[in-house]
Amino acid sequence: MSASPVTVLGLGPMGRALASAFLAAGHPTTVWNRTPGRAEGLVENGAVEAATAAEAIAASELVVVCVLDYHAVRAVTGPHTAALKGRTLANLTAGTPDDARVTAEWAASHGIGYLDGAIMVPTYLVGGPSTLVLHSGPADLYERHRATLQAVGGTCAHLGTDPGRAGAHDVALLDIFWTALTGVVHAFALAGAEGVSPRDLAPYAKGVAGLLPDVIDAFAQQVDTGSYPAGGSNLRSAAVIMSHVLDASRSRGIDSTVISAAHEIAERGMTAGYGDASYAHVAELLRG
Amino acid sequence: MSASPVTVLGLGPMGRALASAFLAAGHPTTVWNRTPGRAEGLVENGAVEAATAAEAIAASELVVVCVLDYHAVRAVTGPHTAALKGRTLANLTAGTPDDARVTAEWAASHGIGYLDGAIMVPTYLVGGPSTLVLHSGPADLYERHRATLQAVGGTCAHLGTDPGRAGAHDVALLDIFWTALTGVVHAFALAGAEGVSPRDLAPYAKGVAGLLPDVIDAFAQQVDTGSYPAGGSNLRSAAVIMSHVLDASRSRGIDSTVISAAHEIAERGMTAGYGDASYAHVAELLRG
Repeated sequence: MSASPVTVLGLGPMGRALASAFLAAGHPTTVWNRTPGRAEGLVENGAVEAATAAEAIAASELVVVCVLDYHAVRAVTGPHTAALKGRTLANLTAGTPDDARVTAEWAASHGIGYLDGAIMVPTYLVGGPSTLVLHSGPADLYERHRATLQAVGGTCAHLGTDPGRAGAHDVALLDIFWTALTGVVHAFALAGAEGVSPRDLAPYAKGVAGLLPDVIDAFAQQVDTGSYPAGGSNLRSAAVIMSHVLDASRSRGIDSTVISAAHEIAERGMTAGYGDASYAHVAELLRG
Repeated sequence: MSASPVTVLGLGPMGRALASAFLAAGHPTTVWNRTPGRAEGLVENGAVEAATAAEAIAASELVVVCVLDYHAVRAVTGPHTAALKGRTLANLTAGTPDDARVTAEWAASHGIGYLDGAIMVPTYLVGGPSTLVLHSGPADLYERHRATLQAVGGTCAHLGTDPGRAGAHDVALLDIFWTALTGVVHAFALAGAEGVSPRDLAPYAKGVAGLLPDVIDAFAQQVDTGSYPAGGSNLRSAAVIMSHVLDASRSRGIDSTVISAAHEIAERGMTAGYGDASYAHVAELLRG
């Protein structure tokens, strides 16, 4: 069985990485970008650069789109609903779960098969074994194109039929990643002001990161079951610790908006009577 | 060589864990707590419960104090400067770096040797191989008492002579830990509102935690050198991602104060002209 053709709309860094991976896996690959001149390197490796989006769409049953945001998705695909009809649009553009659901409705109204996915690794890892792409949408569409979608390497997972499900994972995981990294950068600023270089702190900081998986499992079970035993430390002690971090930050003139917001959440947890419970109990406050 | 005597002032959960570890390692251990009746279990294992703090201090050259906060340290030790003179006070109470420095000055003014330490693990791990205790203060004092201090198990490290150095590590590492966990709980709330259970998200969340060590090393080097190459992703893309998280949170009525504060920092980074640099560049903004 020869590899199925695939079209890639959008040749930003991620779109180029996807096209390269398809080419490397032997898929006849047609590429197009709104601004021409982005197919360099891809054409040398066998890609066909289409002159128009319509021509690119006509080349493959599976059309992958990966552009800046969902506005750009609609700008690129909106004029070509007739060409897309009966094909599958696999949208790997980053956005919110509702972006995905709205786009799925638009696609359905035009007879376009629609899968919505989230690429969970940076560009330079795409094509390699640690690639992780999450997909959601109709299971039969995913099965039909799975072999091609998996050509991006690593792990592809189909999470369910709700088209927003991949995006929901995406925003939640990016929430953890960027909140944690904001903590890391803040800690480096704070340590530096105290005469501790980030390089000296880094081994211990990595040790802290190594504690997170066990707490993630424990907190997940607590939030799932609505039962929040404190275990090793409770919300009250977390609030005290955060107040130390806040005091230390303020005394050195370090911006403390993020830890201050976290501390306020802990204080609200205290007011709600969660002091003796696990910190995870504040999930119920965050939900509003 | 027989194990040196040690005194533990404060029998909260952490003080009790420390005393248990000293006892298990064969150190003659004298304990005292402001409120009596907290030595149960310890006395059965060989601890001597002193009737007064003065009596407890007189029993050992090394006096470990681990109480609620630095106010409590001063309340407990303040009346006993004469008894403490010439001994070593190893303060393992959690606080800020300046708390430690102020207490070191007070100790010096009374001829009391002073070490300030931070216990980096929860109570239930103390005494086991994964214990991590960071110490700072005069190197000769640390060396003199190292064998006893190491009886708490795992790793003891002397970080330097600045008495605030252990506390500086402590607040910076707790900053990372609690900021990251606030992100985790928020992500569970957000995912739940999108129909994704924390249990379903957890395996992927652990994968995200596994990405942090490499980024910590990269960011540490960048902040140390003041050079912020973007590598896989830049501050501009981080700001866009955070705006997706923010939009998704708001659309579900999820409290978004923490990710909103992080997003504002990224926006300030954009305004400062760091859009094409690594996100770590905002360390320079946080410093003020």
